Amino acid sequence: MRDNIIHSYLEKIAFNADGLVPVIAQRHDSGEVLMMAWMNREAFEETMRSRQMTYWSRSRGKLWRKGETSGNTQKLVEMRMDCDGDTLLAQVEQKGPACHTGAPNCFFTAFADD
Amino acid sequence: MRDNIIHSYLEKIAFNADGLVPVIAQRHDSGEVLMMAWMNREAFEETMRSRQMTYWSRSRGKLWRKGETSGNTQKLVEMRMDCDGDTLLAQVEQKGPACHTGAPNCFFTAFADD
Repeated sequence: MRDNIIHSYLEKIAFNADGLVPVIAQRHDSGEVLMMAWMNREAFEETMRSRQMTYWSRSRGKLWRKGETSGNTQKLVEMRMDCDGDTLLAQVEQKGPACHTGAPNCFFTAFADD
Repeated sequence: MRDNIIHSYLEKIAFNADGLVPVIAQRHDSGEVLMMAWMNREAFEETMRSRQMTYWSRSRGKLWRKGETSGNTQKLVEMRMDCDGDTLLAQVEQKGPACHTGAPNCFFTAFADD
C-alpha cells in the first residue's frame, strides 16, 4: 500500500490520549476472535506496509512484530475501522496459536454459572 | 447468576486506570464482530445479572443499556475474558442492527488499496 494512502487512513483514526488505538484480530475465514492489542501510528504504518500485524507493546514500550520470535505471525487480510474511528478490526491469517500461552486464541476463560 | 459468583469474576478483571475494560461484542452464531465498547464494574454486574449487554458510555458518563431507546438489544450468550484479563469478549444475540448508524455492525469502513 502506498504511503500517501496509509497517511490518509492515519488521519481518520481517533488515537487515544496515549496515541494508541485498540485492534481486534479476527481469523478472516472462521470469524474466531483471536486477541485484542494496541497500535500507535508507527505500528499501523508498518502493518499496512508489510501486511504483517505489528502492535505497540504497552508493557515493553516498543513495537511488537507479532510472531517475530514465536513464528506465530498474523498476515493482514483486511483492516477495518469502526463508525467513530476509535477501534480497528484486523481480519488475519493466523499461523499457529495466537496466544502466548499456546492457546489458539486469548479468550479461553469463560464466565460460566459454576 | 448469583452475586458472589459475579463478584469473584469482577476480581479477575484487570480494569484500567479509569476503572474500565474494553468489551468486544460478537454475534454468537456467525462470529460477526459487531462493536467494541467499555464496561465499568457496575455495567459488568448489571450485564451478568440481567443478561442484557450494558456498557459504560464514556461520552455521556453513565450506564448505557444497549438498545434501551433503539430496541436493538444484545442478549448475552457467553462472557469470556482474555489471558491477561484486560479485555472481554461477549458472545451475544443481536436484535436489529448493532450500530447507531443502522449498519449491521460498526466496522463498515475498510482500508482498501484504492
